[in-house]
Amino acid sequence: MQKISNKHLKWIKSLHQKKNRDLEQCFIVEGIKICDEVMREHPEKIKDIICTNEYFSNISSKLHKNAFTLSQAELSRISSLKTPNAILLVLKKEKRLNFDRNQKVILLDDVQDPGNLGTLMRTADWFGIKQFVCSPNTVDLYNSKTLQSTMGSFLRISVWYRDLGQFISENNLKVGGALLEGNEFEDKDLRVMDALILGNESRGISEDLRPKINLPLRIGGSGNAESLNVAIAGAIFMEHWVK
Amino acid sequence: MQKISNKHLKWIKSLHQKKNRDLEQCFIVEGIKICDEVMREHPEKIKDIICTNEYFSNISSKLHKNAFTLSQAELSRISSLKTPNAILLVLKKEKRLNFDRNQKVILLDDVQDPGNLGTLMRTADWFGIKQFVCSPNTVDLYNSKTLQSTMGSFLRISVWYRDLGQFISENNLKVGGALLEGNEFEDKDLRVMDALILGNESRGISEDLRPKINLPLRIGGSGNAESLNVAIAGAIFMEHWVK
Repeated sequence: MQKISNKHLKWIKSLHQKKNRDLEQCFIVEGIKICDEVMREHPEKIKDIICTNEYFSNISSKLHKNAFTLSQAELSRISSLKTPNAILLVLKKEKRLNFDRNQKVILLDDVQDPGNLGTLMRTADWFGIKQFVCSPNTVDLYNSKTLQSTMGSFLRISVWYRDLGQFISENNLKVGGALLEGNEFEDKDLRVMDALILGNESRGISEDLRPKINLPLRIGGSGNAESLNVAIAGAIFMEHWVK
Repeated sequence: MQKISNKHLKWIKSLHQKKNRDLEQCFIVEGIKICDEVMREHPEKIKDIICTNEYFSNISSKLHKNAFTLSQAELSRISSLKTPNAILLVLKKEKRLNFDRNQKVILLDDVQDPGNLGTLMRTADWFGIKQFVCSPNTVDLYNSKTLQSTMGSFLRISVWYRDLGQFISENNLKVGGALLEGNEFEDKDLRVMDALILGNESRGISEDLRPKINLPLRIGGSGNAESLNVAIAGAIFMEHWVK
């Protein structure tokens, strides 16, 4: 059982900032359920296991060389949770698989809320959609709130950050776009679609990407709300798209 | 222009707690967009307008008798927002309309997350569904996070807190329930449904309500996520239900 050093603690805390995650190519995962899943199913992704003395007995001996213990107070200092669990993991960012042109892809144009990105990934994972391409200004996948709201789906989805206009052109994608002023969508529209593009929470899809949309799609509604949340709109399209 | 008193400030701050909102039959709304909408379209709901000196010139003179000014620092003290806007409103809770047996209703069984309740209301409002009945342990509608995530839809939706089992029996409702182990739903199932019941984020619909479900509904998916977020599942059902 190795006690964690102050320097190590400080380094882990630094990973709450995107620039440090990018530099170190590492990120933090919290929550007992997801940590247990990663230790069981993806031990190769683990750089460090950081846990309380009490929790150490739950760690498989194969992983002991990566495990460091600390007090509950020390854990609180490096955790992003209000009530930290007994464990957190530092995982290595990995090389993504190559983009598969024959599989569906979700394109996100400057989605800002980590909960929305996470929920979209969880929903896509439910429906078997495995690829996301995000504009460079979309919220970071490795933000702790994003990871939390994926409920583990980040382990199964490939996410790239790219210029979306260029990506669509290079791959010659047929794109459906969620627009408030589109046509009310029908299932047949979705059948020919390679990609679904969803826009920013306030301003929707950027002006310069709109000409790239082959199918402007709108969700019909008889009520009075001004718009739908982007994760809700995305889910409604996905459900029809995979059918 | 009346300056706000310390006592008044303290009273407003107390409304962040449910017990005080229940006692005083008042609640707080924040955000310029929604405050402007309420002042324009529902002035009768307003008890107090609390704004900075700078913002006062935006308040219609008809509403001046209800308006109190304060400094930005005082506003920060009573606001629930990280970066408070220039205004907040204290609104009066109102008597809800009576439940309309002939209109669709969403039943929520112990939904805990304010964002989920708010997003479900916003989505229902988009689809023209205007009634929610929540179990007594469901998160409070007047929680500031719930209100924020409704994006104004709380103005158009009736929400009651009731024992759901009793409510279903009394109104003899045909209930569809979102279950992970239900049958994959078809549009025809939804056509006969009076009510859609959605369960708690962790444990789903309670055991004692399950016998009340006439149509166990499941959203088909070929992927690996364990479940869908409750607001996502609700939205997918609503979209098919109103068609």
